[in-house]
Amino acid sequence: MKKIYEGKAKEVYETENKDEYIIKYKDTATAGNGEKKEDFEGKGALNLKITTIIFEMLEKANIKTHYIETLSDSEMKVKKVEILPLEVIVRNISAGSFAKRYGVDEGIVFENPTFELSYKNDDLGDPLMCEDHAIALGLITKKEYDYIKEETLKINSLLKEFFININLKLVDFKIEFGKDKDGNIILADEISPDTCRLWDKDTNEKLDKDIFRRNLGSLTKGYEEVLKRMQK
Amino acid sequence: MKKIYEGKAKEVYETENKDEYIIKYKDTATAGNGEKKEDFEGKGALNLKITTIIFEMLEKANIKTHYIETLSDSEMKVKKVEILPLEVIVRNISAGSFAKRYGVDEGIVFENPTFELSYKNDDLGDPLMCEDHAIALGLITKKEYDYIKEETLKINSLLKEFFININLKLVDFKIEFGKDKDGNIILADEISPDTCRLWDKDTNEKLDKDIFRRNLGSLTKGYEEVLKRMQK
Repeated sequence: MKKIYEGKAKEVYETENKDEYIIKYKDTATAGNGEKKEDFEGKGALNLKITTIIFEMLEKANIKTHYIETLSDSEMKVKKVEILPLEVIVRNISAGSFAKRYGVDEGIVFENPTFELSYKNDDLGDPLMCEDHAIALGLITKKEYDYIKEETLKINSLLKEFFININLKLVDFKIEFGKDKDGNIILADEISPDTCRLWDKDTNEKLDKDIFRRNLGSLTKGYEEVLKRMQK
Repeated sequence: MKKIYEGKAKEVYETENKDEYIIKYKDTATAGNGEKKEDFEGKGALNLKITTIIFEMLEKANIKTHYIETLSDSEMKVKKVEILPLEVIVRNISAGSFAKRYGVDEGIVFENPTFELSYKNDDLGDPLMCEDHAIALGLITKKEYDYIKEETLKINSLLKEFFININLKLVDFKIEFGKDKDGNIILADEISPDTCRLWDKDTNEKLDKDIFRRNLGSLTKGYEEVLKRMQK
């Protein structure tokens, strides 16, 4: 298999089937645009299992994803897509960069979820981007923007319900979309505690990458707890 | 008169009429969130004259502004409004913070103007803000956002036409809105080469605050040229 991309937490390989990729989930965790970096044995396998369960749930709810099947503890077979250079972020509760950017507390529950884009570009620090900027730069059309926003808010509703049923508050999450060979925009990348903030419903204990970002204890123990609740 | 606010380029005073303010235009120019600062004799009077002409033009075109009348070389009488903590920015051509933020060249002409908000907060560096964030933080309602966007794009059309008639390209500009005593949202603040990027149509010579930001020559000479063309 030929590696065609290596990101902070995953590697992407071409396969014999020209319409498919294999994604390998790595054990590496990074934070602060790669400034902080550490390997945690088992993290890749945990994220792969969690993403698999979520993608299967979303597919059942008619959300189109790049997911085909999970092949091993580290490999997922997916549809080949061209990833849009956008991080798509939904927030239900203030936290992280939002709280810092606007000088507000974490934990503010929003009346409605917020939708935001950032420009996926490490050199520029993945800057926040408003709708018109993404369109002006030719990254997406207005029609694509509207589709992505609508689909993302659907995904948020599904995920929120899914997580609250296992006593987890979905604080915020980042997803990525890609274009398949027919030009359809479908959900790609992963959905895991690396890309979602998840707080225990009763204690607000953090069970996501903030454990690593903020040195709050064992990252894999947190991710194991999320997976355990999902498998009940 | 009691001074109730002092900004980087203007002072606001209460008057005997509780529904009116007097705004004094200062000679101070600042850049980089106040990091660079210098006084230019005559700058306040130039901006006041330019803003007066623009507000009178906009009022004629049925745009509601806080402008009542200009009293002297430094004073404008305006309706009392409560300024929204938002900088409203329109871009027709890439420049300044847009070019830097997304790593693109200056001078890209957009197919459609872009509309953006930033949170007016010097301590936080006036961060860019997307629609949902402004609403989630309670700074404006969705209805107010839509009204401000629509009104702002109308103002852009009027200004673009006004400036191109005097051989100036309107690259981008920042405006502010306020709420009057009846809760109406109206255009406030100023519109001048301090708040607009203006390039000569033929030579692209900068005739705005970038002269000061980038040490390109005499600031007041540039502003005088803008006023001269407006008075022809």
